[in-house]
Amino acid sequence: MATAPPVTFADVQEAAARLQGVARRTPVLTSRTLDSLVGAEVFIKAENFQRVGAFKFRGAYNAAAQLPPDRLAQGIAAYSSGNHAQATALAARELGTTAVILMPEDAPRSKLAATAGYGAEVVTYDRYTEDRIALGHALAEERGLTLIPPYDHPDVIAGQGTAALELLEETGPLDALLVPVGGGGLIAGSAIAATALHPGIRVVGVEPEAGDDTKRSLEAGARVTIPVPRTIADGQAPDTPGELTFPVNQRLVDSIALVSDAEIVTAMRFAFERLKIVLEPSGATPLAALLAGRVARPPRRIGLIASGGNIDTARFAALVSG
Amino acid sequence: MATAPPVTFADVQEAAARLQGVARRTPVLTSRTLDSLVGAEVFIKAENFQRVGAFKFRGAYNAAAQLPPDRLAQGIAAYSSGNHAQATALAARELGTTAVILMPEDAPRSKLAATAGYGAEVVTYDRYTEDRIALGHALAEERGLTLIPPYDHPDVIAGQGTAALELLEETGPLDALLVPVGGGGLIAGSAIAATALHPGIRVVGVEPEAGDDTKRSLEAGARVTIPVPRTIADGQAPDTPGELTFPVNQRLVDSIALVSDAEIVTAMRFAFERLKIVLEPSGATPLAALLAGRVARPPRRIGLIASGGNIDTARFAALVSG
Repeated sequence: MATAPPVTFADVQEAAARLQGVARRTPVLTSRTLDSLVGAEVFIKAENFQRVGAFKFRGAYNAAAQLPPDRLAQGIAAYSSGNHAQATALAARELGTTAVILMPEDAPRSKLAATAGYGAEVVTYDRYTEDRIALGHALAEERGLTLIPPYDHPDVIAGQGTAALELLEETGPLDALLVPVGGGGLIAGSAIAATALHPGIRVVGVEPEAGDDTKRSLEAGARVTIPVPRTIADGQAPDTPGELTFPVNQRLVDSIALVSDAEIVTAMRFAFERLKIVLEPSGATPLAALLAGRVARPPRRIGLIASGGNIDTARFAALVSG
Repeated sequence: MATAPPVTFADVQEAAARLQGVARRTPVLTSRTLDSLVGAEVFIKAENFQRVGAFKFRGAYNAAAQLPPDRLAQGIAAYSSGNHAQATALAARELGTTAVILMPEDAPRSKLAATAGYGAEVVTYDRYTEDRIALGHALAEERGLTLIPPYDHPDVIAGQGTAALELLEETGPLDALLVPVGGGGLIAGSAIAATALHPGIRVVGVEPEAGDDTKRSLEAGARVTIPVPRTIADGQAPDTPGELTFPVNQRLVDSIALVSDAEIVTAMRFAFERLKIVLEPSGATPLAALLAGRVARPPRRIGLIASGGNIDTARFAALVSG
């Protein structure tokens, strides 16, 4: 296997320049109530306000924008049932090309419609009988499309790092940064940006209890595969850390905090009632870790990335009253 | 009856200076999805992010801050089951004095607790047998407290106008401004600020269909009292326009749009799913008017005040699934 070029802070800075005027510079929110509950100053980078409702647009656009013009013109593709699908569809539209998104045929109609709404061609598959990775590669090859991976790509990692970069530009030095961990792209990019700007910062990943593949892998010193996670945090469903993201996180992440589904729902309710914002389960995990006391000795100034807000009212109502 | 001094644009500007660093300068949100649905550029002043979760803090603080020191030291009071209760409680705390808030004994426990949480003394009454206005005045007199009215006071009106002032400072000229109408304080202050800055601007009030006292009063040319409104928009429950607010609105408001409870719920769902923000029913009425096509010939650049976000998850869940 060829060694991938390491992602550098300069790559994150270049991604930020590329995303200027295309991605939204999302607000940093604060709450006196939250600060007094946690006993710290907390700064929330509200990526639920990002285009497509989640940070994923940053990475997808940063990767697609760097394709050679002839490859870009042939179109891009992704396999995803989540936020990366819409992110890739919108990146294609912004770059004047086409996207084909492979989604499970039983994905929520709202997600299928939203992806198609960005102008992408949606191809469905049966997730019980078909292998989406094989299908995705076959589709890409047949049509000459370039696959944009959801996390395991240097340009995707660099793009995701721009959220932490913006946060730290606005807050100045922080003692700790809390980031949700799924495939590990967001935290890898965040850790590269944060530790370059402030070498002493503690970078803490947050996983759902059932999806602790990165925590286990860090403890084992190698990528571990766990049973498919059963958690409400559907953005953190990967069962194994990424090939490219894991070594970065091994080097730069201090620790992983785990949160239960019940703690995630409590954080979503807090975000709704006190912060007046909508967070999807994965986007609420860092807030859950703080509110549930899962961060040991919380330092004075803490940043967190609220990574997304894509949840419909029916599912939200079911979760908060469940 | 003595003629009240008219509220001027200078009063709003002075209120803004007074609120600097005390009230939050709330963000102005935009959404490409909303713009394309409405066929206009829409700018949302997100007062759900204001302290206490609604614009009410602006007016309460602006009024209390201008009391002579000896009167302020004796304490302030309010009768309210809604956002004005918390606003007055917080204004007292910020100004280093005490507040007594008269609330119905069957008010939601969360609202009683939140008001007490700001350090206020909460006095409850039976709203079926007792008259809150008489009780409020008796309590104030007995204890030497100054009552801060929820809307019918020049300093309250001037304070509420600062939200529109901030909005217009950020957006530049707008063709129309949509504002919820309850007692009329927010729209009176908004209209004073908006028409001073941009004389051609159309100021449109939005009322729930069942609470159309201001629309009827404007049509009648005099304050009309309607049956107690039955609407989910509890912030717009007054059954008659204010004595001071009505003449201002008669002079400066172009028209009133009405929205149904179902249209309000649709707007709350849109705010949740697309804008990722929480709006209480009253706070969603201008958005509802736009989405339901209740604003005739919407002009090119439209501002609206999303006035508050105080709703708990249980009530939200019941409304969106009802």
